[in-house]
Amino acid sequence: MSERIEADYLIETPVEPERAAEAMAGEQSSGTFVPVPGETPELRERSAARVEALEVIGEVAEPSLGGGAVGERYRRAKVTLSWPMGNIGPSIPNLVATVAGNLFELRQFSGLRLCDIRLPRAFGEAYPGPRFGIEGTRRLSGVDEGPLIGTIVKPSVGFGPEETAALAGELARAGIDFIKDDELQSDGPNCPFDDRARAVMRVLNDHAEKTGKKVMFAFNLTGEVDEMRRRHDLLLELGATCAMVSLNSVGFAGFLAFSRHSELPIHAHRCGWGYLSRAEMLGWDYTAWSKLWRLAGADHMHVNGLRNKFSEGDASVVASALSVGTPLWDDKPCVAMPVFSSGQTAVQAAETFRRVGHADCIHAAGGGIMAHPDGPEAGVASLREAWEAARSGVAAEDYAASHPALKGALEAFG
Amino acid sequence: MSERIEADYLIETPVEPERAAEAMAGEQSSGTFVPVPGETPELRERSAARVEALEVIGEVAEPSLGGGAVGERYRRAKVTLSWPMGNIGPSIPNLVATVAGNLFELRQFSGLRLCDIRLPRAFGEAYPGPRFGIEGTRRLSGVDEGPLIGTIVKPSVGFGPEETAALAGELARAGIDFIKDDELQSDGPNCPFDDRARAVMRVLNDHAEKTGKKVMFAFNLTGEVDEMRRRHDLLLELGATCAMVSLNSVGFAGFLAFSRHSELPIHAHRCGWGYLSRAEMLGWDYTAWSKLWRLAGADHMHVNGLRNKFSEGDASVVASALSVGTPLWDDKPCVAMPVFSSGQTAVQAAETFRRVGHADCIHAAGGGIMAHPDGPEAGVASLREAWEAARSGVAAEDYAASHPALKGALEAFG
Repeated sequence: MSERIEADYLIETPVEPERAAEAMAGEQSSGTFVPVPGETPELRERSAARVEALEVIGEVAEPSLGGGAVGERYRRAKVTLSWPMGNIGPSIPNLVATVAGNLFELRQFSGLRLCDIRLPRAFGEAYPGPRFGIEGTRRLSGVDEGPLIGTIVKPSVGFGPEETAALAGELARAGIDFIKDDELQSDGPNCPFDDRARAVMRVLNDHAEKTGKKVMFAFNLTGEVDEMRRRHDLLLELGATCAMVSLNSVGFAGFLAFSRHSELPIHAHRCGWGYLSRAEMLGWDYTAWSKLWRLAGADHMHVNGLRNKFSEGDASVVASALSVGTPLWDDKPCVAMPVFSSGQTAVQAAETFRRVGHADCIHAAGGGIMAHPDGPEAGVASLREAWEAARSGVAAEDYAASHPALKGALEAFG
Repeated sequence: MSERIEADYLIETPVEPERAAEAMAGEQSSGTFVPVPGETPELRERSAARVEALEVIGEVAEPSLGGGAVGERYRRAKVTLSWPMGNIGPSIPNLVATVAGNLFELRQFSGLRLCDIRLPRAFGEAYPGPRFGIEGTRRLSGVDEGPLIGTIVKPSVGFGPEETAALAGELARAGIDFIKDDELQSDGPNCPFDDRARAVMRVLNDHAEKTGKKVMFAFNLTGEVDEMRRRHDLLLELGATCAMVSLNSVGFAGFLAFSRHSELPIHAHRCGWGYLSRAEMLGWDYTAWSKLWRLAGADHMHVNGLRNKFSEGDASVVASALSVGTPLWDDKPCVAMPVFSSGQTAVQAAETFRRVGHADCIHAAGGGIMAHPDGPEAGVASLREAWEAARSGVAAEDYAASHPALKGALEAFG
């Protein structure tokens, strides 16, 4: 295992950036704050992390994060570190401790953010990657081209199994491709998972028998490992075609124990992402974080949406969507399907297509479907028409002239 | 299940704090950004989160976090929300999605931090809590009073199994109570777990046979669920007495799958804690975060140390140490043993005892033991003597007059 793990960081530091980077490398490998016997040159050669690149990109007068060393200025730099595979082997949990462990609180830094990771191919041997991805999702949903038009069960919580099933039926009749549980709804006493799955699949299987179209429903089975596996097995038995997991609620080891068992596409929800990312100079970039989840087996990755109701800007949303389509390795790309959601309507379709460059995605709208002035069927149609227009290079306003559902959406939500 | 889950937050917002708090409650329960059919008063009564308390505590001119709504001032407030147990039941993964999910990135907030959580007793039925805690750790280590004097294998990585075992033997002969693997060392090709465990336990079992003292060694078995369980079983077979897990590397579901299986004290490492906590107005307070891990079965919780090498201040360290000793419920306290480490020597013992108020802890020093001018045995003795002095109400300097190991430490590290 001669290849090395590489990680890119954005740092901010009052000390010499080179010294700060060496401190990172030392802390995350064989360094000690007091020299100890046994830290021989041979050991360092075998185990030490290395600073592979460093580029100062600017400076600020005030530190982004408090508590660290104080200086007259705080320089920002891009840094790349590398580690020998011999330290950890191809293990995602131990990779996390190495590239994102006791780093962020080092005194030398007033800012530290993990931006990207590049992994030796041995990780690709050790981990499954998405088993279904774009192709498998299209096959199971019967959507051969264009985005899957999706929605979320709303209200997020409060419905019982039968009410959820009734809503799923209404959405199926409205022509929807994809429905997901809310991340707040897994197996609460007011809407037990098994009852909900049975009730919803009864309706969706009936619909599929009548129409030939099996709506993909991502059942939120987030829970402990045994619970997730058992719920998955029930889904398989019921003919369901997708399982949803909240990544930050479950963590890497639990997710892997599930994904190695799963025979369904995994719809990966990122709730909690804000605490990992919203401080500009701390935490994780989506590119680094999502690579690990793709490798671990996530088929669909949430990336927020353009003009969303959260604080994330559009450029960040687009970068996230592009990143999940970037191959991890040429011969094992681990590409996931981006899921656009939050405040979405037909209005954002054209720009989403233009900036992302493809339609291999799930575009999920809540109010944008249910609150369409002509009802949910028009809501679904309006999104589909908006993507048809975009993919044909026709302006939405022009396409709307002959497509009343789109017209209604542009008027209501534009 | 009529009791409610409660969570306390620190928020910062340019909008009316009451409105912002209502938005949080809505987003994390039955609210929708466009009103939808089915959101009936009965459903809200059954499922909605409530704002239980709100206190404005100040304001700032500039937002702590970017990307959100803009205002003339940003008010800070303490907010308590509550949720009905019917929404999720006693499930830690789903609790995380509820109290720490899609909240932190809401546009209404320029800061949002989860400070504390109070859970219905049903969570105490559903989860194990620490199986060993203070009493079990004292029993297995044979340390009846005072702290366990501990250390970390250093260099963190680079030693093979035999070198690690040789160091463990040296530390055992020096009188150490507790040794832990570094969080960077689990099962790397250069130091495979099984070989390391066998080599180290051969030495420590020999030492125990000769002296009657079984040094507690926390073997870092962080990995996937099956790996962790298998490594645990080997540890049991070898007569080892502690297993270490890096919490953020593994996550809640994986940790629970391990802790429900474990028959050893679990030494919980918090590496990565910085990205969850270092931005003052974002993320998690240790009190909230550690409660969930205690409930999930963590016996030893890392809390950093006074005058540590990181950016965390002493008041925060003390608050963390106190929080893990605060009962979750009177009849199921789930108290964990705090682990002090990072830049520790005999010098910090007195203040640690004075501010924490007890000695039921692990005090781990690296250089503070290995770099003692009179060697590791004096290093261990110096820590033990410093705690003896503190617990007897004698100033370290006075005690040092008749205790040369402590004297040497105060001179070298003071």
